[in-house]
Amino acid sequence: MDWTALKDQAIAFISEAAHRLYDPALRNLDIDTKEDADDLVTANDFAVQHFLSDKIKQAYPSHFVIGEEGEQYKNIPDHTITWIIDPIDGTTNYVHQYMNFAISIGIYYKGEGKVGIIYDVMADEMFTAVKGEGAYLNGKKLYPRKSIDFSRAIIGFNARWLVGSAGPKTKEVFAGMVRDVRATRSYGSASLELAYVAAGRLDAYVSMRLAPWDYAAAAIMISEAGGECTPLFDGDELFTESCSVLAGEKHVHEEMFARCNGQ
Amino acid sequence: MDWTALKDQAIAFISEAAHRLYDPALRNLDIDTKEDADDLVTANDFAVQHFLSDKIKQAYPSHFVIGEEGEQYKNIPDHTITWIIDPIDGTTNYVHQYMNFAISIGIYYKGEGKVGIIYDVMADEMFTAVKGEGAYLNGKKLYPRKSIDFSRAIIGFNARWLVGSAGPKTKEVFAGMVRDVRATRSYGSASLELAYVAAGRLDAYVSMRLAPWDYAAAAIMISEAGGECTPLFDGDELFTESCSVLAGEKHVHEEMFARCNGQ
Repeated sequence: MDWTALKDQAIAFISEAAHRLYDPALRNLDIDTKEDADDLVTANDFAVQHFLSDKIKQAYPSHFVIGEEGEQYKNIPDHTITWIIDPIDGTTNYVHQYMNFAISIGIYYKGEGKVGIIYDVMADEMFTAVKGEGAYLNGKKLYPRKSIDFSRAIIGFNARWLVGSAGPKTKEVFAGMVRDVRATRSYGSASLELAYVAAGRLDAYVSMRLAPWDYAAAAIMISEAGGECTPLFDGDELFTESCSVLAGEKHVHEEMFARCNGQ
Repeated sequence: MDWTALKDQAIAFISEAAHRLYDPALRNLDIDTKEDADDLVTANDFAVQHFLSDKIKQAYPSHFVIGEEGEQYKNIPDHTITWIIDPIDGTTNYVHQYMNFAISIGIYYKGEGKVGIIYDVMADEMFTAVKGEGAYLNGKKLYPRKSIDFSRAIIGFNARWLVGSAGPKTKEVFAGMVRDVRATRSYGSASLELAYVAAGRLDAYVSMRLAPWDYAAAAIMISEAGGECTPLFDGDELFTESCSVLAGEKHVHEEMFARCNGQ
């Protein structure tokens, strides 16, 4: 398989899908509430998912498609090329802010990430990566970062992790990290925040639980840009139904992983 | 004074100043450390401040200029038109991310805000307001928001307020707010986050301490867009050297103010 050609095809699909999201008149704000009130879903989520699935199945009938708005996630099949799709990552932003939401596609084969694309629709930023070929932002190569001291890091971190369901020990570790870094940011889109790690806008990003489509594309991108993307906690496993995620520049990642696992 | 004409003049100054910040080659990253490690200042901060001050003093010799990179702030003189400038709000973002930083100008006369402009340089978003004439984003009017329930609010809130120097009671109130709202966001630029309140992208924004140039423009804008911008704590006073700030849609503002002041 020519993965670069497949990446270009995926970019074309995403660009076409994005047009549905530009026009405010097309924003269907009939909001259906998923399990969590923070997790808004609009008719456009489904529309973009179906649009992309149809395009992929038409062009590549043997490929498999997994998506946030599709069938229940179990695992990535090993025998066929699998597209893992998040039609709109950052639905709350899409509905309330009309910025900072993304379409994300990761393409996997035999357990390995081959192609990752994250498209910030409103900012027109296309983050792309092909395994072994590097990561790019709007065609410009993203180079591995120089290591920086933890005290100089800017980390993507949601204030809610300090007040939510995490155990007291985890909260204490998180509080220490927030105190010790230069700054925290929170944009409300895991895909974008992970893409920012690849691009060096964030030195790390933490989430207590993400689904595979939230990081399928980003994991490839971060690896190609010289960073690390792993579970936050020893024993967690990526590409399970819900998993903690820690992504970052190698040195910052190491420091945060050690703190979170009592090393 | 024709405040609309003055606004147009201020926009022209800002647009010209912004050109210095577009070109990565012009980014002077010789970082000087101010009191706080989070508060980076670059040579461009000073350059933009001086550029704007010179322009203003040339065009309006009788006007007064207050700026982050200028003389120590005392108070706004009552007898003359005063420009309150933040040359680069979000310097950390400017240096580390090259996005989400803004030039902000508020123009005051006899204690009243007349003109407010906040320019997101990289996103090319110009937020403007003239007292009594409404607030605008890139020329499009910003209308007062429909009140929403606090549980549906998205608030600009820095995770650091949960772990920093605030007293335990304040931290507890903050933790409750973070738990009860739909979501928090943090972009690292007070001016932009306040402009987002005016534009309805955030329903509220909280800071434990801001300087006058952080909110001088935004306060006018938020008021013109039908929101509230006040200190967070009873007894604090805006336009002192350092002050807490709470801005928001009226209902959300009321709820947060009540919680923070034990009402």
